Amino acid sequence: MPGSPFHGGKMEFRSDMTVELIKQSADDADVASSARVSTLGGAARVQESSTTGLINFLMRDRHGSPFEHATFTFYVECPVFVAREFFRHRAGWSYNEESGRYKELAPVFYVPADDRPLRQVGKPGAYQFELGTYKQYMTVSGDLRRISREAYETYKRLLDLEVAREVSRMVLPVNIYTSFYATCNARSLMHFLSLRTYDETSKFPSFPQREIEMVAEKMEDHLHFQMPQTWLAFQNNGRVAP
Amino acid sequence: MPGSPFHGGKMEFRSDMTVELIKQSADDADVASSARVSTLGGAARVQESSTTGLINFLMRDRHGSPFEHATFTFYVECPVFVAREFFRHRAGWSYNEESGRYKELAPVFYVPADDRPLRQVGKPGAYQFELGTYKQYMTVSGDLRRISREAYETYKRLLDLEVAREVSRMVLPVNIYTSFYATCNARSLMHFLSLRTYDETSKFPSFPQREIEMVAEKMEDHLHFQMPQTWLAFQNNGRVAP
Amino acid sequence: MPGSPFHGGKMEFRSDMTVELIKQSADDADVASSARVSTLGGAARVQESSTTGLINFLMRDRHGSPFEHATFTFYVECPVFVAREFFRHRAGWSYNEESGRYKELAPVFYVPADDRPLRQVGKPGAYQFELGTYKQYMTVSGDLRRISREAYETYKRLLDLEVAREVSRMVLPVNIYTSFYATCNARSLMHFLSLRTYDETSKFPSFPQREIEMVAEKMEDHLHFQMPQTWLAFQNNGRVAP
Amino acid sequence: MPGSPFHGGKMEFRSDMTVELIKQSADDADVASSARVSTLGGAARVQESSTTGLINFLMRDRHGSPFEHATFTFYVECPVFVAREFFRHRAGWSYNEESGRYKELAPVFYVPADDRPLRQVGKPGAYQFELGTYKQYMTVSGDLRRISREAYETYKRLLDLEVAREVSRMVLPVNIYTSFYATCNARSLMHFLSLRTYDETSKFPSFPQREIEMVAEKMEDHLHFQMPQTWLAFQNNGRVAP
Repeated sequence: MPGSPFHGGKMEFRSDMTVELIKQSADDADVASSARVSTLGGAARVQESSTTGLINFLMRDRHGSPFEHATFTFYVECPVFVAREFFRHRAGWSYNEESGRYKELAPVFYVPADDRPLRQVGKPGAYQFELGTYKQYMTVSGDLRRISREAYETYKRLLDLEVAREVSRMVLPVNIYTSFYATCNARSLMHFLSLRTYDETSKFPSFPQREIEMVAEKMEDHLHFQMPQTWLAFQNNGRVAP
Repeated sequence: MPGSPFHGGKMEFRSDMTVELIKQSADDADVASSARVSTLGGAARVQESSTTGLINFLMRDRHGSPFEHATFTFYVECPVFVAREFFRHRAGWSYNEESGRYKELAPVFYVPADDRPLRQVGKPGAYQFELGTYKQYMTVSGDLRRISREAYETYKRLLDLEVAREVSRMVLPVNIYTSFYATCNARSLMHFLSLRTYDETSKFPSFPQREIEMVAEKMEDHLHFQMPQTWLAFQNNGRVAP
Repeated sequence: MPGSPFHGGKMEFRSDMTVELIKQSADDADVASSARVSTLGGAARVQESSTTGLINFLMRDRHGSPFEHATFTFYVECPVFVAREFFRHRAGWSYNEESGRYKELAPVFYVPADDRPLRQVGKPGAYQFELGTYKQYMTVSGDLRRISREAYETYKRLLDLEVAREVSRMVLPVNIYTSFYATCNARSLMHFLSLRTYDETSKFPSFPQREIEMVAEKMEDHLHFQMPQTWLAFQNNGRVAP
Repeated sequence: MPGSPFHGGKMEFRSDMTVELIKQSADDADVASSARVSTLGGAARVQESSTTGLINFLMRDRHGSPFEHATFTFYVECPVFVAREFFRHRAGWSYNEESGRYKELAPVFYVPADDRPLRQVGKPGAYQFELGTYKQYMTVSGDLRRISREAYETYKRLLDLEVAREVSRMVLPVNIYTSFYATCNARSLMHFLSLRTYDETSKFPSFPQREIEMVAEKMEDHLHFQMPQTWLAFQNNGRVAP
């Protein structure tokens, strides 16, 4: 299947997420320069060395707009059930996703790794998770592989029968991988991180599904690397998006 | 399963979409009243009888903001692959969707009706569709039922094993039904309609997947009924959202 | 000047703001009903009596989307410098404003009332205000009246000379009143209130200009009246928009 | 007044607009690469040489999202009445503007140049403009200078009396210059251009005020230079934002 980035026609099972930084126009000085338009006027570029206090002040007092001038474009590979959660984020996010109408989907499916907790305990709104038993893990893994395989074989058979891609794909389970471009800014990214990571130091703790948290953690690494002062201020002020 | 709107524990296959108007605050006078703030000032309510020309002018010249003060809240039931397309609409749309993390999903699955075209002809970007053969139809229908059933039985078995809902649901195919509230305004609704219906009189024809068009058509009926002058102006001006 | 809501051709000075609720489709049950789609599925209408706990939970844990299905349309009269701050609110707000290009602007201007603090003390980001001296108050009031009058007379003279409205209005000061329709939802309204009111019990206190706070306070009254449980949860959870 | 970019304490009258490209992450390959995720999957970078046809197709058929991954940050100086129109653009725009609360505003004011048409002819919604007479031009220019000067002197006197900046600035007319950072993407920029430039070849002609068109024209130059294929497709397809 030439042109497809994934596979050579045979089933592939993955337990990880891909987050690649395609490009960025994002550094701490963007935040400081735009904030200083408010107080000084003019387009003078701010030196990064003098911005720590300003950025911390903006984060603490929730002046969010200066963080919107720093942009990131990511390429993501994740299962459909993760993409479904991801695309709920509307403000400050742009997407282009692989289409099951325009291309044949590759046989790449998610199975949880053996350190992925499988049991939910606690009450709605604040579930906790615990590791699964050996039996649970073997069953989940076996069932996902079996259903994925059967569904994909059915998908291929329908395509061979010349049924349209957009119809044939209806049999595919939500653990199939999809891929997309996502462009955001530092503010919308921090909003995403505040909801899609769990951190007990957060002022407003969130309880994301582990798989989207795996994506979020990789994005957070990029924020940390590109905008270290912004990331630190986010961390030190309770992980609340400004 | 008390409290669930769908089913009594046994498999259900549907070929239709549910669109229910939960509430609206939307009539043609909203458009005219807000437009007249621009030209007259003041909060005087406009009489509906005198608004046809104004609404047509606003539509033709693409003054979109007066259409944003008329709001609709819909309840929708559709397959996951339709919801995936739906949730791409960000501006002027608010959503709350049934969660596979917080509730057990009901065994309701989509199969195409026998008048749903199955064959794609033409080239990318402007596909046309033709009816399927008897063999194609029987295969699609049979395969979807078979995979849906197997996947759902697996889902239930995993739940019985006390695997978390958010993990167990990974086996479910994208033809399973989901449900959501969607609130929009007349402008964002027309934008949705312009992209998710096919009409050869459109200035910019779109080629939506048939299933989301079925949802869109039902929404368009509500627009037509609540805001007849707006709908007519939309239709007469090439179905371009203002 | 028939058709103009404001004036009879002579100068008018005001110290207050107009906020009129044009229409609403907003009650606490909207929040609960849409939230329960997530956990129960289905379109069943929730009884208001049972929603207090749910709404408080949603507010506290910052599940914001259920608050987006409740909508308000306001008619506002305020000075241009207030409208400038108001229109910075983008997400979940729709506007139609009186146009200085399409209509002749009425001679209505803002002067601070004598209980409006005039002196700024403290440091940037957390200014405090104190009442002005008699001399300060008399000067501010006199100067605003004088400049407003001169500017408006000049505006009228330019119009009489057949200079276009959009050019003539360039002489008018930012204390002239404008009017607009603003449609929002309960979530975007609470976000506005959290930034445009000062309340020492807020988790993230804001220091708005007094004049936009006067508008915000009137809007908050409507939220309080239409959605008492939502308002109370907002108040009790630190006035942070969910 | 050190730190201020504008002035040395004396009145300055300008007839032009400043648009400076602070930074960009925008080229035609961004559009093509993100579009190809839909049809090919994968993060492979597209060669610019092969993208003309694809970009033209996306523009013509109004596939807008691939244009959202190309971002621009501008620094703008323009009069307040222009900024008021500018900030109506919500989707895909981020702003940080000079604040009359946090800084003393500089005495820089707009007067129309002598080729700026002053007379409005035709009917609402489709006004045309013609050059002013000598008398009109001299009056507009003289009146704007006079009112600007008086208002600014009053502003300074109020500041000297220790009246807060946010109160003192209420006397200033809307022809005073402001400055801001504006970040957008190629799609939101084209939407802005379609509404804020007049071009008789447009499918939906707009009739912007000349002063915001002056800003828009400078922004369009940057789009043209950074993304020549995108700009050409925009021009060739009726200047409709995709």
